[in-house]
Formats: sequence, structure tokens, C-alpha cells
Amino acid sequence: MQRVVIVGGTHGNELGGIYLCRKWTPAPRYWQNYPFAVETYLANPKAIDLNQRYVDQDLNRSFRASDLANPDLSAYEAQRARLVANDLAGADFIVDLHNTTSNMGLSLIFSGTDSFGDPLTRQLCAHLMQSEPLVHVYHMPVPADINPYLPSLGQRELTLEVGPMTHGTLRADLFFKTEKLVQTLLDYLADWERGEAHTYQGELTIYSHVQSLDFPRNANGDLAGMLHPHLYGRDYKAIRTGHPLFITFEGRELLYQGNEEAYPVFINEQAYYEKHYALSLTRKVQIPI
Amino acid sequence: MQRVVIVGGTHGNELGGIYLCRKWTPAPRYWQNYPFAVETYLANPKAIDLNQRYVDQDLNRSFRASDLANPDLSAYEAQRARLVANDLAGADFIVDLHNTTSNMGLSLIFSGTDSFGDPLTRQLCAHLMQSEPLVHVYHMPVPADINPYLPSLGQRELTLEVGPMTHGTLRADLFFKTEKLVQTLLDYLADWERGEAHTYQGELTIYSHVQSLDFPRNANGDLAGMLHPHLYGRDYKAIRTGHPLFITFEGRELLYQGNEEAYPVFINEQAYYEKHYALSLTRKVQIPI
Repeated sequence: MQRVVIVGGTHGNELGGIYLCRKWTPAPRYWQNYPFAVETYLANPKAIDLNQRYVDQDLNRSFRASDLANPDLSAYEAQRARLVANDLAGADFIVDLHNTTSNMGLSLIFSGTDSFGDPLTRQLCAHLMQSEPLVHVYHMPVPADINPYLPSLGQRELTLEVGPMTHGTLRADLFFKTEKLVQTLLDYLADWERGEAHTYQGELTIYSHVQSLDFPRNANGDLAGMLHPHLYGRDYKAIRTGHPLFITFEGRELLYQGNEEAYPVFINEQAYYEKHYALSLTRKVQIPI
Repeated sequence: MQRVVIVGGTHGNELGGIYLCRKWTPAPRYWQNYPFAVETYLANPKAIDLNQRYVDQDLNRSFRASDLANPDLSAYEAQRARLVANDLAGADFIVDLHNTTSNMGLSLIFSGTDSFGDPLTRQLCAHLMQSEPLVHVYHMPVPADINPYLPSLGQRELTLEVGPMTHGTLRADLFFKTEKLVQTLLDYLADWERGEAHTYQGELTIYSHVQSLDFPRNANGDLAGMLHPHLYGRDYKAIRTGHPLFITFEGRELLYQGNEEAYPVFINEQAYYEKHYALSLTRKVQIPI
């Protein structure tokens, strides 16, 4: 492993990663001891200046191989994605720092179909989980040829999704926890490269993406209701058949109809209103470390 | 009192008031029993469509008399303000529904220098406070000739500031509490007009604006720190000399230096980052009802 890149500002109003990358510029002196280079990288400077998620389209959905190969796409983020892909080509490990308004703590999100076929990824997850109780592992696999996410540019990838933090604001507690977790991650990668990493046995708990659910809507497609208060802040808490999911503006409750126990994530994420996701459901899975 | 107007969407991404106004359109049948007309009014339709606070400038700072009289102002909100002022001319009572990312519960904000010289305002505050424990009264007086706020267009005015609610999202619990409080308010105004209102004795607690504080900044004017975690969610909770206010990105704490006990509000409000307000400090005052 020669090149590790810490990315911030893929979404221009997710301030945690942006201000951490700025804090790490110039790079902390102790990074020089690592057996690989560590860089920081601000992915969407124009959106950062505007304090907006994006300018024309979501940069973090702009990395499909076919889109990167298409010079006719004119949106700012389509063009920016080609530049970013060029800048990050050859990175061995990309950590993309995000924030969410949902109560997802410090979520490690992986988008590869075979992310957990990799022993380092499994060991790293185990290490980060035991270092910080707010860490959860969320697997949202997408086939490589249509993977639209920035960190998929790396040989290995990780999205660190930190919340709850309102977009356009900072929360000091989560800022410092993110800083510490990235430090722990880099230390572990260094130990791994040196053949000195502690290795874990047993099982790893993974929350595997099942589906995203939209809000109730009326015949015009407008919102007809809201998430049910029983879900607030309850990311990664099990729900079972009959659990209230939504409440209409008239006060009618809509219940979870599935038979399978589900673990919601991205509950009431602000940026997903426009994607028509009120929350996502995951399945809790144990895999051998 | 002949005309009461409930305003939503003065800020286009504060969804609570917007969806309540839509729910109240057409008007609920029981509003026909009031001895005055009640209207709903969406103040910034273009910002609502864009799901943004504003298009060109903050509409809720666009109502200074001199600005309304100046036909040369070309910003969308400057022009919209003149139209709104015309539409709401002659309103006896304006209730402007807002949301905040701060934990301000259901705050009644008054911007008149003599708001509490009015017996109805004092009695209404007392009534709403006893009806809902999340109600606080915040007085932020501005001389009438330079008052920039929309509700100052009314003979009487009230801003109902509801939070915590992330802009661009809805929270069902606060949505229904807001609906209920507006209902309680209208019922009280009706009783008052009929001479049947319950009147209160004793004292009213008011939080009176003292000053707004900016974040720590570096020599370039960029953020150098964040609100201290000890302040999160602690709107209307007393702080005294030495209470931590901020923490720099390097972890240094900055303390409250004032001698006077202060009551913070608008703690970490997202929309106030651009105004350079991290929080506002108020003084707790008792006045006779």
C-alpha cells in the first residue's frame, strides 16, 4: 500500500470532513512515520464555497465508468468527477468523509459486491468496532461497472458516514470522534503493512442493505406524511411487523408490513428527501472475521 | 379583530409551517365559527419550490419601511416583500411559522419595542405557556421604522419558532404540537374577542435579547472552532461566568466571560452560520401579566 487518500467535501455542506481535511493541511507530522503516503483531498470545491450539497448533480453518484468515459456530460459534477477520477487514480485506499442528519454514529459503508472477501477490510472493521462503540458496518453493494460512488475509485474503499450532524453545521463531539477514528484507521493500516496488526477472530456484525422506503405521498406525488416519532434517532434498532413507520398529516399511522426483522438506517436524512428515501432497511448479518 | 393570517414558508426550507398551511387549505370547517377571518399565506413560493431558505436574500429581513418604499431593489425577495406587504396590509394578527435546527421547542418571538405593553399579548403568552410546556417567550425588539421582519406587517405579531427540526425535513411530533398550539392561539383570540377569555394574574417569564455571538474565527475570517458540546440542546438553560461556549479545532475551550447569568437561544442554528451567529444570549425577565 503506497497511497491512502482521505477525502472531504464530496458534498459541499458536510462540514465535518471538510474542516478535518483543512485541519490536516499541512499533514500532521506523525503521518510521516507511516509506511505509505497519506493525502487529503477536497472533492467538490465549488459546492464547498456555496455551502451546498452539490452545484448541478450529486458528485457522489457521478462515478459510473460509463459516465466517466462520456465527455459530453456537461454538469459541473460530471466534469469534476472525471478530474477527481484522474487525481485519485492508483489510490490504494480511499476514505470518504461524510455527514448525515440521521443518528448513524460512525458508520463504515462499503459499496463493493465483494468488500468482505478482503481479509484487511474484515479485520479493519473489527478493529474500528472495538475502538469506538458508535461504529457500525453498513454494506450497500453495487456492481463495479455501475458503482457511482467516489470511494470506488480506490483499490480499497470506505465511506465514513458520521451523524447526527445538520448539513451546513459542525458538531464538536462528532468532529473529534471522526478525527480519532481516522487516526485509528491509519495506525491499523500501518500496522497491517508492517505485518504487526492485531488480528481478530470470531464474527463481524454487518448491516446489509435491503431496500429504501419512500414517504407516503398523495396522488400528485407530494408528501402526505412524515416519519413516525417512534423511529427518531433509532438507526440500527430492530423493527418488526407492525412497528409504526409513518404518520400522515391527518395522524394516521402506517406500519411496517414486512415479516423479516429489519434494521433502519438513514432515518429522515435531509439530503434523501429529494431522492424519495425516508429511510433504508437493512438486514443484520454475522460473518466470520 | 377582523383578519388573522397564519403565514408559512417565509423561509422556503422550513417545512413545518409550509405543510401546516397546506393542511389548512381549504380552511378547517371549525374556523368558520371564529368572530374573525383566518387565512393561510405562503410567503416565499419560489424558495419553497427550490426547497431553499431564500432565492436572493432573506425574505424575513426584507420588510424595513425604507426598503418597501424603494422600487429600485431588484432581488427576488425585495420585490416579493412589497407584494407580501400589500397582501397582508390591514391584518390584525400575523402568526409567522418558522422552524429552527436549535432546540427551542415552541418559542413565541416578538419584535416590537412595546410588544408587552399590549394586554392581549401578555395574556396570550400566559395562556400558551400553560397549555404547552415547550413554550418560551423570546423578546427581540427592533424599532418599528427599521423592523425587517414579516410579522411586523400586522397590527399584532408573533413568530412561532419551532425546533429542533432540520431545514428541509419534517418532524411529526413538532408538526402536531405546532398545529395544536396554533389552534389554542386562535381559540384564545376568539374568546378574547367575545369577552370570554380566561385572564391570568401573576408574572410572565420573558427571555429578552442581549446579543448574538459569532464563532471563533482565524485571521482570514474562516471558522476556527465549534460550539462546545456542553451547549447542545441547552437553549433557555442558564450559563454563568466560565461556562464553556466554544472549542477550537485544536481542542482549546473558550469560556463565557460575562458576569451576568445568560440564557442562550438559537444554539447552532444552521441558517445563522452565514449571519455569523453561533448562538444568541438572552436575559431572563419577569414582567407582570
